[in-house]
Amino acid sequence: MSTAPFQPRFEGYEARTRDSFALQGVMHTLGARMGAVAPGSVEILIDWAPGLTQQNGFLHGGVVATVLDSACGYAAFTLMPQDTGVLTIEFKTNFVAPAQGQRFRAVGQVIKPGRTISLVDGRAYALAADGSERLVATMTATLMAVTGRSDTPS
Amino acid sequence: MSTAPFQPRFEGYEARTRDSFALQGVMHTLGARMGAVAPGSVEILIDWAPGLTQQNGFLHGGVVATVLDSACGYAAFTLMPQDTGVLTIEFKTNFVAPAQGQRFRAVGQVIKPGRTISLVDGRAYALAADGSERLVATMTATLMAVTGRSDTPS
Amino acid sequence: MSTAPFQPRFEGYEARTRDSFALQGVMHTLGARMGAVAPGSVEILIDWAPGLTQQNGFLHGGVVATVLDSACGYAAFTLMPQDTGVLTIEFKTNFVAPAQGQRFRAVGQVIKPGRTISLVDGRAYALAADGSERLVATMTATLMAVTGRSDTPS
Amino acid sequence: MSTAPFQPRFEGYEARTRDSFALQGVMHTLGARMGAVAPGSVEILIDWAPGLTQQNGFLHGGVVATVLDSACGYAAFTLMPQDTGVLTIEFKTNFVAPAQGQRFRAVGQVIKPGRTISLVDGRAYALAADGSERLVATMTATLMAVTGRSDTPS
Repeated sequence: MSTAPFQPRFEGYEARTRDSFALQGVMHTLGARMGAVAPGSVEILIDWAPGLTQQNGFLHGGVVATVLDSACGYAAFTLMPQDTGVLTIEFKTNFVAPAQGQRFRAVGQVIKPGRTISLVDGRAYALAADGSERLVATMTATLMAVTGRSDTPS
Repeated sequence: MSTAPFQPRFEGYEARTRDSFALQGVMHTLGARMGAVAPGSVEILIDWAPGLTQQNGFLHGGVVATVLDSACGYAAFTLMPQDTGVLTIEFKTNFVAPAQGQRFRAVGQVIKPGRTISLVDGRAYALAADGSERLVATMTATLMAVTGRSDTPS
Repeated sequence: MSTAPFQPRFEGYEARTRDSFALQGVMHTLGARMGAVAPGSVEILIDWAPGLTQQNGFLHGGVVATVLDSACGYAAFTLMPQDTGVLTIEFKTNFVAPAQGQRFRAVGQVIKPGRTISLVDGRAYALAADGSERLVATMTATLMAVTGRSDTPS
Repeated sequence: MSTAPFQPRFEGYEARTRDSFALQGVMHTLGARMGAVAPGSVEILIDWAPGLTQQNGFLHGGVVATVLDSACGYAAFTLMPQDTGVLTIEFKTNFVAPAQGQRFRAVGQVIKPGRTISLVDGRAYALAADGSERLVATMTATLMAVTGRSDTPS
């Protein structure tokens, strides 16, 4: 994914993004942490755990989608004005390999920011011990800016 | 959604579906339970909890997608032969209302079963105290049958 | 698909819908006609022709998606106020059978109308000589209302 | 989109791809031409015409999706063995700007090739007179390899 040089709308965009993420109860439950944050781009990290699996012991596809959803929503959020929240309208996830591994990285990258509607691409990778990454899932997410709410990614 | 009169491929389809669901660690973590199971249709129930929320205190969209994914995957699974598992190739979720409420119901309903590829529709509802339901999200999911694996919805 | 009893916003909703459809140059090129129009629901008919095919002689998937897109967009449009147009934000199409046949019917049915965002389901059927229908494709489409423009489905 | 160095399965992959495209009747109707073809990547060009429009005179979203669908399908096809065709299982298109302009370019780029299932990303651009490009739509498409059929993208 190409990274356009997006400009945030106010200086505190990163702190606001991290503060909102900290309020997502499910991220604590999943053990997910926010990694790098940049204008138009957000990274979320998560580790394998027995409480996150599908029936074969791999990370459940829904867990992969959950961290991708937050990565995409917050990527759009980094480009929103200070009085604006962001809602997930829809997302689509393709699973290209079993989510097998100990650690995973989800990245959301804004493709097209908009005053009302933004389009964000997501990629989830399984991280190997040697640092190499294997693509396990992709997402395209449509987000809507909501004025007068401080933060509302799904 | 219309419910075609699908025929299961062997008598034990329901027990197999419930057994596989019981192996999904994340369903225990989310407090999700399998409800009604019929040929081509599966229901999953989940309650609101502080550990399942997004930043405004509603059920996180990813949690909604996770139970929809399992409902859709297992709906397809009920129509698979005994030696066949089922993988999620992709799903798309539209969020039509905030997942606000105490209890939620996700239903997966097979639209088109196939020897290799099946298409399943999902709907997630917030349940009110008076028993009424409000649609909060929809899913369309593509599942692939995998022979020689006992059970593999994502 | 269940059909909720949607109310149009003004009396002339059907005439406006048919007038806008008549302006779509591509519908003339494809030989597509608007069939039944009701509040929240629109039907489009199209016949097989050699100029609409993919490489095996079946109706091209993109043609199926094109008539589904217009059926879904106009289904949402029937519920919009008089000064409002509607834009396609995104759609997803699943192809469940080859588009083999002489005549096809696409139906768009609003699932959730909204002041800004509407969700519409689409189904495309191949029609047999005996009047029976075979599902060939499904669509879910997200439409956005645009005020101050008379008509703008994609 | 990153371009992995994909290897075709036989020497004649490009000729086969162009030959199959030439059989798509709808591409003649739309005036679409195949541009660059490389392993895992295909480009299709199309010009604005009054017979391709929606009601505001822009290129109809379905036409954009049709050329994206062929670009994605043939991108996957370039990596298939000689006795294998490829079917579109599903695609999702996001529209990020009106398809306003005189000339358009659709590019399909394989993200993950597979023995059975392949994932392809598509981008459609409006081309300005000065050679600059503006993104108008994106696609993610899931394709399935079909053995024993010479060519079957949707």
